[in-house]
Amino acid sequence: MTLQQTPHPTHRSRDRQYVISPEVHIDRTATFRCQAPQAQEVGICIGRVTEFAPMYKDRAGNWQITLGPLEPDLYEYSLVTDGVRIADPNNPWVKPSERPSTSIVDIPADQPALYDAQNIPHGAVSTRVYWSDALGVLRRVLVYTPPDYDCEPDRTYPALYLLHGTSDTEESWISVGRANFILDALIDAGKARPMIVVMPYGRAYPATSRESGSLGYVENMRRFQSDLLELIVPYVETHFRTQESRQGRAIAGLSGGGGETLYIGLNNVDSFAWICGFSSAVRENEFEQNYGAALADADRVNEALNLLWLGCGGEDHLYPVNLKLLDWLKAKGIHHVAHLSAGGHDYHNWRAYLAEIAQRLFVG
Amino acid sequence: MTLQQTPHPTHRSRDRQYVISPEVHIDRTATFRCQAPQAQEVGICIGRVTEFAPMYKDRAGNWQITLGPLEPDLYEYSLVTDGVRIADPNNPWVKPSERPSTSIVDIPADQPALYDAQNIPHGAVSTRVYWSDALGVLRRVLVYTPPDYDCEPDRTYPALYLLHGTSDTEESWISVGRANFILDALIDAGKARPMIVVMPYGRAYPATSRESGSLGYVENMRRFQSDLLELIVPYVETHFRTQESRQGRAIAGLSGGGGETLYIGLNNVDSFAWICGFSSAVRENEFEQNYGAALADADRVNEALNLLWLGCGGEDHLYPVNLKLLDWLKAKGIHHVAHLSAGGHDYHNWRAYLAEIAQRLFVG
Repeated sequence: MTLQQTPHPTHRSRDRQYVISPEVHIDRTATFRCQAPQAQEVGICIGRVTEFAPMYKDRAGNWQITLGPLEPDLYEYSLVTDGVRIADPNNPWVKPSERPSTSIVDIPADQPALYDAQNIPHGAVSTRVYWSDALGVLRRVLVYTPPDYDCEPDRTYPALYLLHGTSDTEESWISVGRANFILDALIDAGKARPMIVVMPYGRAYPATSRESGSLGYVENMRRFQSDLLELIVPYVETHFRTQESRQGRAIAGLSGGGGETLYIGLNNVDSFAWICGFSSAVRENEFEQNYGAALADADRVNEALNLLWLGCGGEDHLYPVNLKLLDWLKAKGIHHVAHLSAGGHDYHNWRAYLAEIAQRLFVG
Repeated sequence: MTLQQTPHPTHRSRDRQYVISPEVHIDRTATFRCQAPQAQEVGICIGRVTEFAPMYKDRAGNWQITLGPLEPDLYEYSLVTDGVRIADPNNPWVKPSERPSTSIVDIPADQPALYDAQNIPHGAVSTRVYWSDALGVLRRVLVYTPPDYDCEPDRTYPALYLLHGTSDTEESWISVGRANFILDALIDAGKARPMIVVMPYGRAYPATSRESGSLGYVENMRRFQSDLLELIVPYVETHFRTQESRQGRAIAGLSGGGGETLYIGLNNVDSFAWICGFSSAVRENEFEQNYGAALADADRVNEALNLLWLGCGGEDHLYPVNLKLLDWLKAKGIHHVAHLSAGGHDYHNWRAYLAEIAQRLFVG
């Protein structure tokens, strides 16, 4: 996948004609195609647009559908061939996932969106591996460094630890979330402090597609907490020019990673002064068990935290439990910012939430 | 995708049971599964093993097959559901491609292979973007820096420009080729000089899945040559501590990227003193046109080049044309190393070729 997300031109190479999918048209409609002569039914589901739309088949077995016009955005979609959900086999841009069956299509606006790669100074995303003795495996972590990192050898930077959701991977915040381009644009505009962003793989165990942010899987959270605090933070602070203080460390995450963020953050306010949950996967019957002891002394917590930020969309299935969490925090006397937006449980919101918190972190 | 390529344990989460595919067993057999109740036929094709093996369906519509025992290696495979080739939707490890329909399975040996991530010092892989005025797009380039790069701030390093094949992307040499782990292991063993490895996206135009290494697509090669020499090399030499001399620059590539390597390398011996083609996509009727003028003065070329290395496997469909290229070079009096191996047109050979040349580059 490259950033050249120019719609593929239809072209012939020798005797073969390649399927072009998706093809984004100038009027912001998009045509999706799938060559499946033997299939009985092929359709598409595309986030925020349709749960299932059947595609139409020509005599050669080429299925297609044109949708839209669509609002400018990055959309996630899957093709469904005779009941099997698959990533579009003609689209290079697959969403990184433990179970990869989703592709991305970019419907561009007239002006660059915040998540677009623009012709401004760009940071770098470095893929590192570190050895986990506890787990007996090498693990990957992606580290974004801001545009001026290489030119300012004496400068230190605060670090945001940014966690993905259940079934995502350490690559998701870059590939789909566009965390790097969002930070590049905000830093270039002087709206965010230059910061390092650390994106680990948020599962301590190899069992995939389990929830991770809730006490139902507390063993994951405890082991991931060890991985983060005992291995990743020291690795980052050894290998990058960071500010080794709680004021210089933030933690944020989405969905299952939001649950992890609250669990790890609230239980470690001596390590993180900034805590942000996006559509956090939490359970009402676990608030007390997960955070009760840590928040018992509200004055101490309020003094320690510069920001406790909770965002959720009104159409998100986790909206009701996030409202309950906000009430519970209020009852405990814990200062926080509630960011209740429109929209649902998707990166459309999470990209916006990242842009929102990036402007608040490490300020003041 | 993480390096924890532990076989997934079968587990239940609430009321759902996830499909585990692939499941690699201790005896080096592997079970592949696909849930497709409506499909008439599901099969698998797996490189170096079978072009198509039908899978078997149980009453619930779960298809599966167990293959092997398999020789330890990284294998590429696709599932084929009613004639549609797809990446395994339950395997996080998708091969990066312009048309992503291939997954990877790792059959481990008792001892770590050269391409395995080992508990030794590791380099970093940095993803950078640079602006191409000529093309009007941002492009990505991946840059490997060796383990000691961050600890030796005054040291400069030679750079290998490493090109992927047709339909691959700038990520392929890392994800499938394991170039980073191969270099880490060779450097740790003292068998390769610490070097930077630069992996650009090797297409100048957005048209995907065209061949790229041959004069049939000379416009691609010319434009990619400009991209490489006028943008990528200066970008790398500005942002990384390189040796800015032809002795400190090597170029290598596989298949279509092998064709590009020979075209760009042989026409620019003032820029690259080391040139290595792996299973190079070349055409006999283009040798003279592509390289004739550049190689006219054999003494000058032989004096300039430290290494011209050409590797190809006996089962590779490009073996005959590579033999002809070797004959043609011999007739021209151009010194070169012919590495004729067993095997075919795949990363099994290309990983071995990289390990071979890495021990020869920048030596002497």
